[in-house]
Amino acid sequence: MQTVRAVRSGEMLAEEALEHAIARIEVTDSRVNAFTDGTFERAVRQARAIDKLRASGAALPLLAGLPYAVKNLFDIQGLVTRAGSKVRNGEPPAQADAVLVQRMEAAGAVLVGALNMDEFAYGFTTENSHHGPTRNPRDLSRTAGGSSGGCAAAVAAGQVPVTLGSDTNGSIRVPSSLCGVFGLKPTFGRLSRRGSFPFVASIDHLGPFARSVEDLAATYDAMQGPDPLDRACHATRVQPTLPSLNDGVRGLRIGLLAGYFEDHAGEAARKAAGTAAEALGALRGVVWPDAALARAAAFIVTASEGGALHLPLLRERAAEFEPLSVDRFIAGALQPAAWYIRAQRFRAAYRQKVQDLFKDWDVLIAPATPITAPTIGTETFELNGRTLPARPSLGLLTQPVSFSGCPVVAAPLWPTAALPMGVQLIAAPWREDLALRAARVLEAQGVAKSPVSRW
Amino acid sequence: MQTVRAVRSGEMLAEEALEHAIARIEVTDSRVNAFTDGTFERAVRQARAIDKLRASGAALPLLAGLPYAVKNLFDIQGLVTRAGSKVRNGEPPAQADAVLVQRMEAAGAVLVGALNMDEFAYGFTTENSHHGPTRNPRDLSRTAGGSSGGCAAAVAAGQVPVTLGSDTNGSIRVPSSLCGVFGLKPTFGRLSRRGSFPFVASIDHLGPFARSVEDLAATYDAMQGPDPLDRACHATRVQPTLPSLNDGVRGLRIGLLAGYFEDHAGEAARKAAGTAAEALGALRGVVWPDAALARAAAFIVTASEGGALHLPLLRERAAEFEPLSVDRFIAGALQPAAWYIRAQRFRAAYRQKVQDLFKDWDVLIAPATPITAPTIGTETFELNGRTLPARPSLGLLTQPVSFSGCPVVAAPLWPTAALPMGVQLIAAPWREDLALRAARVLEAQGVAKSPVSRW
Repeated sequence: MQTVRAVRSGEMLAEEALEHAIARIEVTDSRVNAFTDGTFERAVRQARAIDKLRASGAALPLLAGLPYAVKNLFDIQGLVTRAGSKVRNGEPPAQADAVLVQRMEAAGAVLVGALNMDEFAYGFTTENSHHGPTRNPRDLSRTAGGSSGGCAAAVAAGQVPVTLGSDTNGSIRVPSSLCGVFGLKPTFGRLSRRGSFPFVASIDHLGPFARSVEDLAATYDAMQGPDPLDRACHATRVQPTLPSLNDGVRGLRIGLLAGYFEDHAGEAARKAAGTAAEALGALRGVVWPDAALARAAAFIVTASEGGALHLPLLRERAAEFEPLSVDRFIAGALQPAAWYIRAQRFRAAYRQKVQDLFKDWDVLIAPATPITAPTIGTETFELNGRTLPARPSLGLLTQPVSFSGCPVVAAPLWPTAALPMGVQLIAAPWREDLALRAARVLEAQGVAKSPVSRW
Repeated sequence: MQTVRAVRSGEMLAEEALEHAIARIEVTDSRVNAFTDGTFERAVRQARAIDKLRASGAALPLLAGLPYAVKNLFDIQGLVTRAGSKVRNGEPPAQADAVLVQRMEAAGAVLVGALNMDEFAYGFTTENSHHGPTRNPRDLSRTAGGSSGGCAAAVAAGQVPVTLGSDTNGSIRVPSSLCGVFGLKPTFGRLSRRGSFPFVASIDHLGPFARSVEDLAATYDAMQGPDPLDRACHATRVQPTLPSLNDGVRGLRIGLLAGYFEDHAGEAARKAAGTAAEALGALRGVVWPDAALARAAAFIVTASEGGALHLPLLRERAAEFEPLSVDRFIAGALQPAAWYIRAQRFRAAYRQKVQDLFKDWDVLIAPATPITAPTIGTETFELNGRTLPARPSLGLLTQPVSFSGCPVVAAPLWPTAALPMGVQLIAAPWREDLALRAARVLEAQGVAKSPVSRW
């Protein structure tokens, strides 16, 4: 909100803030490769409108003049919605902005472009074979994480203060963790998904990235609200989180997850979670129910729904799909229906168990990724004595949580001098406010932070 | 309600009504084969309690002294819930009655036993290889229809005035049609299914059979109401239908379905639907959307969910399953997940289209089965120049309707002297009252009727 405050006070024009963002993109993006599309002309019009509004003496909206960008699966009027693919190149341009882009615009934010991602959001590394990999601004030889890798990298590189991405199995939290930025995966059904390209309709979430908890909360608040035209949006009202951000965590029951979430965490991950737990006065040893089963079920639902969605195109143009995911899509579509049905049945019982857990807790802590950012092209890594396939295993700690539908803030900690490690702050469904308050406390203590990378 | 009125007025004891039912069962069931279990001792206790209540001068509940029986997939305390199978013989007896049985008991109805069905409700003919086929009381060489064949046959044979069955793709309406009785498939989600053995969780309905619309409506009213412990029960309150039964159909917009529902109807079916349309002053030529697609989707969802449910037992004991359905269960479990997901997506859009249709109509008419009851063992029949497999094709006209979730009354017409033919009276979701009113008008005109069979 630094930018917004400067625009509001007259210290800086919205157009100047935009020029700053564009200049930073031009300096850094040849190395980072976060952007796939620029909407600079539109941005200039938007910024000038904000400046005109201020000049007229009118009140400015919540995010006035804030430059931002979106994962390229959000519809932007006049652009083809890529969703990371090239099979969609021949599609007609979007006729309207996605609902969340409309809400950002109404809040005065200025859209500067669209961001790289794993094709159709099926991946954790943004190694996009069509557009090239997005590189981690903390170390350009490493992956930015995925599938919203462009979102996290653009924020870490200081290209824009805020981005919007999507998270099905970890696609906001994994790149937040590897790039060292804040990310919010809201409650399932909280934000309208209308006008975004789907991946797994029954698990997809949209949410923001930022370098401060205040920006994260303000952006989330600007996007909240019911959408009667989106059947999957269960929000009935706006519950602002920004005003309570500095209430601290006194009185909150905070716990550190053990068991699965320890067993699948490397040294840096354990250290980061331990640091967060200490800073928040968390009790240790909380056991999350059925985490491994939930991850298995999430895989089945993901592959089945993703495969079903793309089956018509896979039949005719499989060779044009991302080589890293095409086989998984085909296998997913052909999985036995019985697996999918049992996975969805399991999920109903699982969500209930997780809700019951939150009768005793307000915020639960876990690492966001098992390891810090691996080198681009990494095929396997070692974790507590086992060799794991690198790309799917980056979601080991996020998949069980998103499958429950709970809101999560990923907060960037720095267990090693070189590379960041995200910590998940998980709350009960519809309690984003609690996760954001915990993140704000970590930030205020200097435990979590997201400096602009040197690139 | 003849029996209830007689009990209430003191003309007859509840125990006498029960003795009459038991005697009729003993005389007819060796030929009809509707019952698989008797609960006569329990029934005697229940009947005596009603008689005692009356003797005390207390007010009697809605169905006081009414003998009834249930498809053997309803839990009855102390009995193994067969669900038509023999693989379940080793299961422990039910610890409690199904919710609807509890509600019937609270309303004073007297449970006399459990009724034959297709194994696991997967069939339209009640040709149960373990227990033998239920025979149609209108002609013992013919099928009673299914899967609730025992329910329809017991009512047609005058064994009990009321029975409870289940309908996923037509399992109440098909046997109602073939046996010449009234049947009600309520709105999806209206009646609690807790304590009944599932078949296809996302399409299963429970509902009553009777020989008069009054009995049908009273039984339905006695079972209505929310069940917070059944996630699939969306009822929020009781909406009694009995009081409005004699309001007639003046002012109702009634239509006769054309297209698919004509094309898949034989001569007797068309004649019956035409007669009902004339009696109700219906307009002709109404087109139901996507009926053929809905039937295909219903098949996919049915086979997938049914197969998923039974997969663990199929792996180990397939040889003990019903030979007529075991292959379908296995094939269903192995269908590609993509088919199931697309079928469920189609369904969401389809339900909306059907709801939109009911903006213009209150009651829509269609035949319930393409043909009258075929001979037991029939493998194929001719329909408008095409040869169709007999067993699945009995559901041609019911499957698209249940897949929409709309309530339907099946009313027995008599287009030929010998055999009945049911007509579906379809209303918008939650408007059972309108379908029941239309059925009552057909009954009052003598167009629909359900005399006791001579057996």
